[in-house]
Amino acid sequence: MAKQTHKRDRRAKTAGSRSRRRGPGDPASPNMIYGLHAVEAALRNPNRVINRLFATENAARRLSPAIESRGIAPELLETRALDDLIGGEARHQGIAVETEPLAQPDLVDLSDSGLVVVLDQVTDPQNVGAILRSSAAFGASAIVTTERRSPPITGVLAKAASGALEHVAVVKVPNLASGLRELGQMGFFRIGLETSSDDILEDQVFSGPTALVFGAEGKGLRRLTRENCDMLCRLRTAGKLASLNVSNAAAIALHTVLINRAQNH
Amino acid sequence: MAKQTHKRDRRAKTAGSRSRRRGPGDPASPNMIYGLHAVEAALRNPNRVINRLFATENAARRLSPAIESRGIAPELLETRALDDLIGGEARHQGIAVETEPLAQPDLVDLSDSGLVVVLDQVTDPQNVGAILRSSAAFGASAIVTTERRSPPITGVLAKAASGALEHVAVVKVPNLASGLRELGQMGFFRIGLETSSDDILEDQVFSGPTALVFGAEGKGLRRLTRENCDMLCRLRTAGKLASLNVSNAAAIALHTVLINRAQNH
Repeated sequence: MAKQTHKRDRRAKTAGSRSRRRGPGDPASPNMIYGLHAVEAALRNPNRVINRLFATENAARRLSPAIESRGIAPELLETRALDDLIGGEARHQGIAVETEPLAQPDLVDLSDSGLVVVLDQVTDPQNVGAILRSSAAFGASAIVTTERRSPPITGVLAKAASGALEHVAVVKVPNLASGLRELGQMGFFRIGLETSSDDILEDQVFSGPTALVFGAEGKGLRRLTRENCDMLCRLRTAGKLASLNVSNAAAIALHTVLINRAQNH
Repeated sequence: MAKQTHKRDRRAKTAGSRSRRRGPGDPASPNMIYGLHAVEAALRNPNRVINRLFATENAARRLSPAIESRGIAPELLETRALDDLIGGEARHQGIAVETEPLAQPDLVDLSDSGLVVVLDQVTDPQNVGAILRSSAAFGASAIVTTERRSPPITGVLAKAASGALEHVAVVKVPNLASGLRELGQMGFFRIGLETSSDDILEDQVFSGPTALVFGAEGKGLRRLTRENCDMLCRLRTAGKLASLNVSNAAAIALHTVLINRAQNH
């Protein structure tokens, strides 16, 4: 418990310093989650601390069951005031919550997991959010990523995750190579996705705990990341261009593991 | 040929009126394509009319083989000038071309295609661009979409498509229900993706020409769209949340058809 508290404090400090720099209403601010699905999931997550709820009348009505189950009074405002509060570009759909970051597990806590995703410097919050969403849909329990060169776990990412942030853990490690070694010691078979590989992901059998490792688009996996994988694979493609958006590649790989396990069961 | 010319003229008019309204440098302007992959593919597409090429020295060097093969002189400028030209938010990677819209086939020209994607009011250009990219990767020849409620075929979409815009046709139809009927008459088996369906996409056999039909997130397929499908299917999922980003759902569905055809051949 002491450790958890320490983690919460450290994160809260980061959030505070970001807020001062960016303004509390910035969509990249670490403490705002907006959008109907993301906010509804946050309201329904008993582990999620929510400090304030902002909503238009219309959005408050749409989410009234979730709002009532949480027992929080929404601060009603007009769409334009919400635009100003969150930042004009954010598609907030009339609702936002000011939250505390979720307490996240440590790497060692993933030992019972059958499937995790590892991201090597994937920085686009839309992509990471969509990968969280696919992880929730295909039963991956966590995303493992680096503390640096990863997007803040809120705002754009939470919106793209569409509620999945409340169901899939985000484990940030100081060093990805060490993290991968630790996953290997925990029994995970670590598969790095790389378009230049000869081995095909769809041909593998995913019997034990599996870690799927993805790099940033263009850059791919870093050398130490590759070296700490048990195998490198590419997806089967058939066209003039063989490259995929990283969240699409992750969705396909997660789906492939699910289908493969269903067939080999 | 007369028909093609007419189409080009009509499209050029649309582009012109948009430019006046939005300014030629707006990333949503129909005639600007930017980003290394998108511009390289445009330069290498002999059917793509390119009026001007803007680049930083560095980007011009990186794409020099494609630039030389096209025989066009880049107009060199600083990153900041390119920011201003295209719009500050666009990730142009130092290079942009001012182009004419590609002449696109009519629906009837898709008769030799084995796989097409149909989009029912998917308006997000990032999603449509990513779907174009997945289409190119998994051998779909075209995206069919409505003239209204679809994003302009340039800028953000072209960037997200990462070059796929030069390989996959975008067929815009006035009415999607009529378009689907026409695809049916051409022999396409039309599968609408709907999360509430009992039938599972992965259990089907895709022997003949196939059209995969996707709706906008949240809204799903409209009634007339559903009624003009031969079958409704969902993807197999296994998690707490069964909903996917539409470009991820499309990527998985396209991949599923490819794998299924390889297995049943």
